[in-house]
Amino acid sequence: MILVIQAHPYPDRSRANRALGRAIHDLDGLEIRSLYDLYPDFSIDVGAEQRALERATTVVWQHPIYWYTAPALLKLWFEKVLTPGWAYGPGGTALVGKRCLWVATAGGDESSYREGGMHGQPFEAFVPVIRQTAAFCGMRWLEPLVVDGAHRIDEAELSGLGERYRERLRELVAEEGRGEGGGDA
Amino acid sequence: MILVIQAHPYPDRSRANRALGRAIHDLDGLEIRSLYDLYPDFSIDVGAEQRALERATTVVWQHPIYWYTAPALLKLWFEKVLTPGWAYGPGGTALVGKRCLWVATAGGDESSYREGGMHGQPFEAFVPVIRQTAAFCGMRWLEPLVVDGAHRIDEAELSGLGERYRERLRELVAEEGRGEGGGDA
Repeated sequence: MILVIQAHPYPDRSRANRALGRAIHDLDGLEIRSLYDLYPDFSIDVGAEQRALERATTVVWQHPIYWYTAPALLKLWFEKVLTPGWAYGPGGTALVGKRCLWVATAGGDESSYREGGMHGQPFEAFVPVIRQTAAFCGMRWLEPLVVDGAHRIDEAELSGLGERYRERLRELVAEEGRGEGGGDA
Repeated sequence: MILVIQAHPYPDRSRANRALGRAIHDLDGLEIRSLYDLYPDFSIDVGAEQRALERATTVVWQHPIYWYTAPALLKLWFEKVLTPGWAYGPGGTALVGKRCLWVATAGGDESSYREGGMHGQPFEAFVPVIRQTAAFCGMRWLEPLVVDGAHRIDEAELSGLGERYRERLRELVAEEGRGEGGGDA
């Protein structure tokens, strides 16, 4: 099973994230959990989240980039759900070998992510925080799907983007069917 | 005025953060705001935070490193308080020229922050998220005070660390007194 953790505080304001969500919502083999819908008060049900993770062979983190990383509720999810003795440290092997796909939408376009640009550095400079969070739990990092220029993207691009995302998840589901997912499934 | 934004969800469990807090709490010229004390329910008073920032010439972000960056409540503070038209974008000049000092405590020691180490990369790989948040608002980034090995640090080191922090803030207060603070003070 592929677990899609979606974290968008204002989905109505985000065309890109909405298009991504629409493109995959009816795919078989997924469990989709929308954190801001489930926990508007930031009270995360740690047990429910850990059980969902245990069912998964692949974990998707799908969110807009806010201040160069994950939105606050997904950050809280990392802190509350990825506990020592479960996700890392002695006995903490729940996520070892599971695959992690990062799907991030960024408002700025490529030219803003460089030295002298609005965001001062290439987008890659902001990746280690998320990538190492996955790695610390022993997850296998897949090639991320990063969408830049999400503010300006037009309808045709949006639909192409949704299709790419859907195709990517479909492949991952198919690999799981062939037993290539890894993890403990 | 120097505004110290402290963000530690479990101050009782953190010897390093507690020592840092103790070392500066009685210094003149500071305003200290402890986010987890002020907002245990994550309901940030945006107006109060923005007014505190407007009074400051230097802003300190003091927190432990959780999952390679700021704890969730400080992340939420970035998202809620640093609003467009106030902190960035057209008309968003409230923080321009103010100094920003990052004071971070990390559990791992230096040897864990490298390729092949427990954290996979040097600590510097995780700095851009925070540094660029300050830069995007036009703040001037000061040399950060980063404490690694915070789990293992002994009492003598702790007290030396507190003294360094206190000295650093005392210098910044003195510079403000001489009109070197910058910002709009």
